[in-house]
Amino acid sequence: MFAVEVRDHIMIAHSLPRPVFGPAQGLHGATFVVDAAFFTTDLDDNGLAVDIGLATEILKEVLAPLNYQNLDTLDIFAGRVTTTEFLAKHIFDRLAEAIGNGRLGEGGKRIRKLRVMLHESHAARGWYEAEL
Amino acid sequence: MFAVEVRDHIMIAHSLPRPVFGPAQGLHGATFVVDAAFFTTDLDDNGLAVDIGLATEILKEVLAPLNYQNLDTLDIFAGRVTTTEFLAKHIFDRLAEAIGNGRLGEGGKRIRKLRVMLHESHAARGWYEAEL
Amino acid sequence: MFAVEVRDHIMIAHSLPRPVFGPAQGLHGATFVVDAAFFTTDLDDNGLAVDIGLATEILKEVLAPLNYQNLDTLDIFAGRVTTTEFLAKHIFDRLAEAIGNGRLGEGGKRIRKLRVMLHESHAARGWYEAEL
Amino acid sequence: MFAVEVRDHIMIAHSLPRPVFGPAQGLHGATFVVDAAFFTTDLDDNGLAVDIGLATEILKEVLAPLNYQNLDTLDIFAGRVTTTEFLAKHIFDRLAEAIGNGRLGEGGKRIRKLRVMLHESHAARGWYEAEL
Amino acid sequence: MFAVEVRDHIMIAHSLPRPVFGPAQGLHGATFVVDAAFFTTDLDDNGLAVDIGLATEILKEVLAPLNYQNLDTLDIFAGRVTTTEFLAKHIFDRLAEAIGNGRLGEGGKRIRKLRVMLHESHAARGWYEAEL
Amino acid sequence: MFAVEVRDHIMIAHSLPRPVFGPAQGLHGATFVVDAAFFTTDLDDNGLAVDIGLATEILKEVLAPLNYQNLDTLDIFAGRVTTTEFLAKHIFDRLAEAIGNGRLGEGGKRIRKLRVMLHESHAARGWYEAEL
Repeated sequence: MFAVEVRDHIMIAHSLPRPVFGPAQGLHGATFVVDAAFFTTDLDDNGLAVDIGLATEILKEVLAPLNYQNLDTLDIFAGRVTTTEFLAKHIFDRLAEAIGNGRLGEGGKRIRKLRVMLHESHAARGWYEAEL
Repeated sequence: MFAVEVRDHIMIAHSLPRPVFGPAQGLHGATFVVDAAFFTTDLDDNGLAVDIGLATEILKEVLAPLNYQNLDTLDIFAGRVTTTEFLAKHIFDRLAEAIGNGRLGEGGKRIRKLRVMLHESHAARGWYEAEL
Repeated sequence: MFAVEVRDHIMIAHSLPRPVFGPAQGLHGATFVVDAAFFTTDLDDNGLAVDIGLATEILKEVLAPLNYQNLDTLDIFAGRVTTTEFLAKHIFDRLAEAIGNGRLGEGGKRIRKLRVMLHESHAARGWYEAEL
Repeated sequence: MFAVEVRDHIMIAHSLPRPVFGPAQGLHGATFVVDAAFFTTDLDDNGLAVDIGLATEILKEVLAPLNYQNLDTLDIFAGRVTTTEFLAKHIFDRLAEAIGNGRLGEGGKRIRKLRVMLHESHAARGWYEAEL
Repeated sequence: MFAVEVRDHIMIAHSLPRPVFGPAQGLHGATFVVDAAFFTTDLDDNGLAVDIGLATEILKEVLAPLNYQNLDTLDIFAGRVTTTEFLAKHIFDRLAEAIGNGRLGEGGKRIRKLRVMLHESHAARGWYEAEL
Repeated sequence: MFAVEVRDHIMIAHSLPRPVFGPAQGLHGATFVVDAAFFTTDLDDNGLAVDIGLATEILKEVLAPLNYQNLDTLDIFAGRVTTTEFLAKHIFDRLAEAIGNGRLGEGGKRIRKLRVMLHESHAARGWYEAEL
């Protein structure tokens, strides 16, 4: 299995309004450093698992609607608790969608698996990975 | 697959008394920066793979009997060679036990896989991962 | 010059309501990984520049009123723009105060310089350093 | 599954002479920080997944013919596009060969999987992993 | 003293054609992860040491003529040995020039010191710092 | 001011037998990732602040008598408390000595300042720096 992974980041506000979150129930925020890994079983004629330039672009596009936002005010997250692992899945879904829409070109069809990892601090991270 | 990973560290002395270890046969020591990753197939109603606060606590509890110790003097390691990968498995087993004992609450039952990674320097690390 | 540096982090919401901040004018947030470095010209009888245990404790105490907060709602920041470098200075001042109050014990009197560095992402950081 | 991972690096020149690479079509270069992970299902009598000293040595040996080279001039890469993921596979193949030749000793026979990861910057990496 | 530091990177080919460089005398290459730190003695009315957005932009502009190049073929480096520390100084000079030309706006005049650090691998880096 | 910094590491056992160290009074250990920075005011004819190959060699030589040792048993540390900052100074002194003895060649005479930083975990480090 081959993989190419690219990194970007977002800076967001949100609350986690359930008792289990203790002091994080109130409005606070996070920088999420986001790693998106694209897995393929082979390389194309250019020696590529995936076009790393396009991969970087679609990650930025997918993150744009979240970056510098208060997630509590976004319709897409109404009634949801925007934990690190929930957001990893959300970004995963948007990336999978973009790949399905051909945003990675023909090469996107060769992607077998995605992993989206969100680093929330130097001491904690969460991710979601699945086959496409 | 979802995952949440938390980090802590221990500082221990030990010897690796077998010829294969060369200069590490004598008493020396290590800082192990420990990453524990908890994998689940779904999220609970709070949007959690695992309660990250509890996960951090049980990692600290499991590491406590090792931290600031000379592993050569601990009964639990009598006759064992406490390599990085051996210790990864030891910590894995203690975490699995704690989860089995309900230390992660109801949510602990949803954990499908654990991975325990020990970074022994900027240039080497070892880990153990398995399904629960 | 000797130095000891310890790390902690905070997760906060804030807005930066001035045109120069572009998309960061609205409410968003950040994880700040905070490094506090304590500088001395000599070591005490225990071989210490500063008691690293106490240093870790006072950093945590100083960060506590900020952690998991929306900085826009804190009286202490009324009318201020809570940029990374501004917050570095704020934390520096609280640490200097705690040292002045004897929170680092007798050893605290030997501290000549402090540096407080806030990492806001994998690609940007800000800090404040000054002699005491 | 156990794993031990060791790190080294190479500094190479190359061109990526296909239109898809845009500005990277011309001769440029890269530092690749290389992580090689060796996976086994059990530990030997010494508590080892793999002899970390030997693992470090064979990684260095396998990287030596590439280090400080212009990859465009190496016969082994004639007609090939030396992308990060292609090079990960190349290094994987040489490591697998070395293991097959007994360079990791008897213990090498217990290796079930290899992963070779090349970090090309703070924001991008590629890897190849497969069972042996 | 306040500071703001931003990160970018370049991927270049070059040779270091002097006997002291041993195997690095031939054409090879490097990824340089570049940190540029801007130091001021105070903050402006917006709470800024320097506009981090503009700082990121001018670093990118200054790096652009080097990125994806074979430094051996650039007129500006004719007869020079493009070591890590030499390049740190080169980038420092271009940044200082850009600041002098007003590329950081009025705020640029408050910058007292610059530091340009080039990470060439996980184990080595070089930098140049000076007052402006 | 120019600087070149190289990294190595040591794995040691020691005790810190004073009440202030709490649980670290007993025999335990540490990995110290060691960064040695060499500062000069100019570059030589080869574009070098310091020969990075030689710098790496003398750091390894200076660390060798400590690596894989129980520091409590070394005559040179009899009666001393081997804290992180104390060890930083010890390694600084040995490096300064080696430079004085010409181990960095003629170029060594141009070194104005040294800094030796020991990372003891992902969350703490200590260093010593001084002019030569």
